[in-house]
Amino acid sequence: MTAHADREGRTDAPGRADSSGRTGVWFIGARGSVATTATAGCAAIAAGLHPPTGMVTETPPFADSGLPPLTSLVFGGHDTLDCPLAKRAEALAEGGVLPYRLPSAVRAELDAADAEIRPGGPLPGDTRTDEELIAAFAADLTDFAHRHELARTVVINVSSTEPAPGPDDPRLPASSLYAAAALRAGCSYANFTPSTGLRAPALTDTVADCGLPHAGRDGKTGQTLLRSVLAPMFLQRALPVRAWSGSNLLGGGDGAALADPAAAAAKNAGKERVLADTFGTAPEGEVHIDDVPAMGDWKTAWDHIAFDGFLGSRMVLQTIWQGCDSALAAPLVLDLARLLARSHEAGLSGPRPELGFYFKDPDGGTSAALAEQYATLLAFAERLRGQA
Amino acid sequence: MTAHADREGRTDAPGRADSSGRTGVWFIGARGSVATTATAGCAAIAAGLHPPTGMVTETPPFADSGLPPLTSLVFGGHDTLDCPLAKRAEALAEGGVLPYRLPSAVRAELDAADAEIRPGGPLPGDTRTDEELIAAFAADLTDFAHRHELARTVVINVSSTEPAPGPDDPRLPASSLYAAAALRAGCSYANFTPSTGLRAPALTDTVADCGLPHAGRDGKTGQTLLRSVLAPMFLQRALPVRAWSGSNLLGGGDGAALADPAAAAAKNAGKERVLADTFGTAPEGEVHIDDVPAMGDWKTAWDHIAFDGFLGSRMVLQTIWQGCDSALAAPLVLDLARLLARSHEAGLSGPRPELGFYFKDPDGGTSAALAEQYATLLAFAERLRGQA
Amino acid sequence: MTAHADREGRTDAPGRADSSGRTGVWFIGARGSVATTATAGCAAIAAGLHPPTGMVTETPPFADSGLPPLTSLVFGGHDTLDCPLAKRAEALAEGGVLPYRLPSAVRAELDAADAEIRPGGPLPGDTRTDEELIAAFAADLTDFAHRHELARTVVINVSSTEPAPGPDDPRLPASSLYAAAALRAGCSYANFTPSTGLRAPALTDTVADCGLPHAGRDGKTGQTLLRSVLAPMFLQRALPVRAWSGSNLLGGGDGAALADPAAAAAKNAGKERVLADTFGTAPEGEVHIDDVPAMGDWKTAWDHIAFDGFLGSRMVLQTIWQGCDSALAAPLVLDLARLLARSHEAGLSGPRPELGFYFKDPDGGTSAALAEQYATLLAFAERLRGQA
Amino acid sequence: MTAHADREGRTDAPGRADSSGRTGVWFIGARGSVATTATAGCAAIAAGLHPPTGMVTETPPFADSGLPPLTSLVFGGHDTLDCPLAKRAEALAEGGVLPYRLPSAVRAELDAADAEIRPGGPLPGDTRTDEELIAAFAADLTDFAHRHELARTVVINVSSTEPAPGPDDPRLPASSLYAAAALRAGCSYANFTPSTGLRAPALTDTVADCGLPHAGRDGKTGQTLLRSVLAPMFLQRALPVRAWSGSNLLGGGDGAALADPAAAAAKNAGKERVLADTFGTAPEGEVHIDDVPAMGDWKTAWDHIAFDGFLGSRMVLQTIWQGCDSALAAPLVLDLARLLARSHEAGLSGPRPELGFYFKDPDGGTSAALAEQYATLLAFAERLRGQA
Repeated sequence: MTAHADREGRTDAPGRADSSGRTGVWFIGARGSVATTATAGCAAIAAGLHPPTGMVTETPPFADSGLPPLTSLVFGGHDTLDCPLAKRAEALAEGGVLPYRLPSAVRAELDAADAEIRPGGPLPGDTRTDEELIAAFAADLTDFAHRHELARTVVINVSSTEPAPGPDDPRLPASSLYAAAALRAGCSYANFTPSTGLRAPALTDTVADCGLPHAGRDGKTGQTLLRSVLAPMFLQRALPVRAWSGSNLLGGGDGAALADPAAAAAKNAGKERVLADTFGTAPEGEVHIDDVPAMGDWKTAWDHIAFDGFLGSRMVLQTIWQGCDSALAAPLVLDLARLLARSHEAGLSGPRPELGFYFKDPDGGTSAALAEQYATLLAFAERLRGQA
Repeated sequence: MTAHADREGRTDAPGRADSSGRTGVWFIGARGSVATTATAGCAAIAAGLHPPTGMVTETPPFADSGLPPLTSLVFGGHDTLDCPLAKRAEALAEGGVLPYRLPSAVRAELDAADAEIRPGGPLPGDTRTDEELIAAFAADLTDFAHRHELARTVVINVSSTEPAPGPDDPRLPASSLYAAAALRAGCSYANFTPSTGLRAPALTDTVADCGLPHAGRDGKTGQTLLRSVLAPMFLQRALPVRAWSGSNLLGGGDGAALADPAAAAAKNAGKERVLADTFGTAPEGEVHIDDVPAMGDWKTAWDHIAFDGFLGSRMVLQTIWQGCDSALAAPLVLDLARLLARSHEAGLSGPRPELGFYFKDPDGGTSAALAEQYATLLAFAERLRGQA
Repeated sequence: MTAHADREGRTDAPGRADSSGRTGVWFIGARGSVATTATAGCAAIAAGLHPPTGMVTETPPFADSGLPPLTSLVFGGHDTLDCPLAKRAEALAEGGVLPYRLPSAVRAELDAADAEIRPGGPLPGDTRTDEELIAAFAADLTDFAHRHELARTVVINVSSTEPAPGPDDPRLPASSLYAAAALRAGCSYANFTPSTGLRAPALTDTVADCGLPHAGRDGKTGQTLLRSVLAPMFLQRALPVRAWSGSNLLGGGDGAALADPAAAAAKNAGKERVLADTFGTAPEGEVHIDDVPAMGDWKTAWDHIAFDGFLGSRMVLQTIWQGCDSALAAPLVLDLARLLARSHEAGLSGPRPELGFYFKDPDGGTSAALAEQYATLLAFAERLRGQA
Repeated sequence: MTAHADREGRTDAPGRADSSGRTGVWFIGARGSVATTATAGCAAIAAGLHPPTGMVTETPPFADSGLPPLTSLVFGGHDTLDCPLAKRAEALAEGGVLPYRLPSAVRAELDAADAEIRPGGPLPGDTRTDEELIAAFAADLTDFAHRHELARTVVINVSSTEPAPGPDDPRLPASSLYAAAALRAGCSYANFTPSTGLRAPALTDTVADCGLPHAGRDGKTGQTLLRSVLAPMFLQRALPVRAWSGSNLLGGGDGAALADPAAAAAKNAGKERVLADTFGTAPEGEVHIDDVPAMGDWKTAWDHIAFDGFLGSRMVLQTIWQGCDSALAAPLVLDLARLLARSHEAGLSGPRPELGFYFKDPDGGTSAALAEQYATLLAFAERLRGQA
């Protein structure tokens, strides 16, 4: 870890000093459902209003891993929308995503985070070059860290899924501009969406040389989470899956974004990757994502798995998952912020395969089986305990 | 392993000699759906008519573990019914459990196994004592082994679920009589049903002193298999399960047997154990088992899992499993026969927790999570590779 | 209608005079979820805060049938509990049954109804005879009508399901005491629960001579509603149902009440009646009702229907109904109040088979098929249009 | 019926004479799964091997309607494939669609029908004009009727769904060529598929002047059948459907044909028509049809219906239909053959809205509600009883 330590200019255990400081959490898509839920929820949990349901980093194995406490997190971010966070939180409470009284209970924290949201981009008509955009976003991050005297900042992309970029597009997609800005500003980075982020070919060298920890892509919250435990079951029991078909109904911003076939294709690639990684080859079957505005922020995913039993007998497993994507994503996003901040503090850099538990398409490559990913995560928690 | 080796009186690697011999597989309930399917299926796979779908012991990790080949297995058993195996197989083919042409293709093997089925008991009016019954059953096993010059025999209980015995019943339940006979005849033993088997208090000393490997109780084929991967998922993701409810519809002999509330209670105990073992305490929710003769040998299991998400949001997972219990159980029963025979050959004795992968209620106690059970099983396969 | 008019002793068209007056709606179980939801919802709809979703009597075919307007309904009732209606409404809003801001928006109406709730009974230790209890309850009704100068009052039982009474019990069940009181006070009556109500043998003569309209038993809100359209479909398509199995998960007060096997049996009888009435004989299959407190006021009902196709091919339909029983029942209860009040005004008396659309077990006997019941209801709306 | 009789130029009651004769059933797609199942099944039922499950015309209300007996039906048809019917029937038996022993039991009838199958078209390279093709197909029909001395013949399209024709295509689609040939040969006609058939604009005059009964389009066998009873339920209960989404998984020839987006679009139009006809406007939601070869001839349809309850509470109904399309279609196709033959005999001509019970998109327009369609069908059966 010497190189990283040097790069961060440590001389006398700045990590310790830093760890008494505060940690920035910078959301790309800071006014979206996931970021709003994470921001409001962190405040509510920190205040003791709710237990930390869904936060793996609040379970006993992580108790002594040196993760930044929830009370030390400072929120900010980029967004292209203007709606105040407090109003977004009210809308989420109306839709049953947040407890009804929560927005008023954490109003101060929402307003504080709202004051730290900077305009995203590029919007239509913006004439800045990619380099100018990256520089502007990085300056926003540096300014945020400076004003709050942050020990370090984690940038997490939780914005709507972008359409997959065309092969010949000379411009970087927005998600990659933000990601590049994160690295330039010395921030660790996680991509919770299927968008390109750090995976843009043009960023290969930047990523390789950044000396910062990063993780992604595409958070594993519902249907794919299920697939990551069911697919290994079929494999371990030697029951060949003949066809695995799925249908997703969702409303909200995510539903609308995924109504774009290119965005849906990016999303589906992640879902199928888990099956292909487990079985060696993807079984028959398609995945549909339907925009159903009537569902609001709630989502239903139906899976139909046709598999063979002994002597070719035909059997079927069907699963129906009904959840709220924002509420599923938010605690994982807080987990990632804490784990990446701690990784950064501990001098770890590059892709963090230990965080594969959280992703459909992990950086660094790991088993697609949740049980193995969890074991790896626990080992990481243990390792962090031993770090200065 | 010295003790075990001594107990078996080895002098010059009898294991090797034995391994060139044949292995007996003795089914309690030899004319039932599971035994008929296993007997017919083993013949079909050995003849190359079907791939070994569902047999974990036919996957690569077990290739060099010294398991007895399928062609070396000799089938026999006890049953209280008279219906010829070939006729039972025809009925299973009518119901879609066996491929239609299979019964005629393996007619010779079915008739051979049929000739080795001895009358079970006790039937009403039988005046023999428990001891006389055990002696008679053990004699059947010894005779079987002698006539076929078997290296060793594995006894597996696949008969209908017994009602849970009353606390003050002076007699051993039938499943325990058969189990005691197995040990007396020097056979390893597995109990694939929720019946008492070796767990009778009166057999405690016999079991402790037997010097034979054994495993059980209650095969994990469908709903509980699912639970053993889903429950750990909720735990690992820190998502508290509020209620886990289930309903099972099944026909066939098993449906009729489980229509007896006492038998159903025995079965349900196993299903709930997986949840209690995983979560520390069983969540709210009941499990129903309905006898639906119209379902024939097919089974549908619906599970409804209400769980909490971030900030108390309420989410639901439902699963519907549609399978044929006989076809799910048969390959696992063949696996167990091979693994226990090999354990016996290798001088292992006592409860085999390595086989927890197969059971709702493993002998010896292991994690209830399938992924960990599978890892343990693979380690066992590795260990067997190193045994003489 | 002369006969009925005579029976009520009309001389100078009191119906017209009455119809400019107000109508009482008296709930047995007035502090329960259904009554609270109906009371709050009626106020909200009358105030234009919500559309009358789920109220059949607010659809065009009923526009000119002379039903009492929602603004003319005055609420009261009996209950053995003390919790104020406004507080009950708050709890329902917390559970997502009522819109969150509704309780405060209709606070005045809830308080007004709360002031008209009288103690029910008999509670343990109450030494009054059946006759004394009936007289007391009837006096409450008379007093209510008198103070509010009501044209007429409808009594509707929406309390928790009673255990089915034993054959030799000398006392009337509570539901029958209330029902007898309703008739004695000259009120029409509907029983939205599976409890005994007017079906007590001891009340046969009273009912026959009452000269008042009544309807019931057991509202058809979810699983049975579905059955009443699906069962005719199978019949019409000549597809024999082999087995119809169901499982219900529900929390709230209803879940707890139905955890009593005798109460569940009363409830299940209604569910099975629809199938038996449609098919001539009930198919195989059981219905389970599980108390799952974690579900709160929400309910999930799973049905599994195994049916035969051409040449005996085996097919399956499964349905999963997820709803809130209070929200399903409340608009139907308001419908019944209006239809019975109008029937009363129009001089109709005795069982009203035209209202079979609303019940699992209609008074007066009608087809169990929803489509026919709806046609009958529409004809009734037409007929009421023609009445003075 | 004089008008119709005149149009057909009857003079001395040929209907009576004919009715002692035999009726032709000519399938377009005669070697497909539906035609094979119908042909084999008719023989099996006529021989008393199976009850007439799924045949509405074998229920009591049709007993005296003068329908041609099953024993009087003579089968033939067009197909572009060569596979012998007996071999197709064997494959269906392997897939569980036909009882295993049925193909051999009705081998003679299958061979007889096979001998009456003529080459369909046009295949690639066929240089015949539309008129030449129609003439050739009509000649096949005339020859069939002549050789078998048939009283009349019904032509039924059960071939794979065609892609929807482009607006400027100068050629008639194949389904319309066959349909035109049917009318030219004096045969009644039903279109059990979503293909164009008689709905081609170029055939408008031919259809108007044909003097023959016809019915269609697109048989209602599973998901749409369900929708035709569920949609009216929501309407009758004043429960607004917010979104109705569906997913279909099917293999077999139909799955492959519907993998063509243009064919799937034709199919989906029918499914949505039922909802739009019932509700006035189609609710949100999409329908997907996935080709899943592993499903063979079996199909699974999942529907997710999000609806509003009282005060806007959100509720959901989900249905899962698992059936075999061929087995669902075959008895309805036999029904249609009998009802059209009888209509023809009775001198009825033009579109028969009385048969709307069978179709997603009925000729002549009727209510989309199954219950009303059934009542109409029963009235038709009654009317036919009164005909000479």
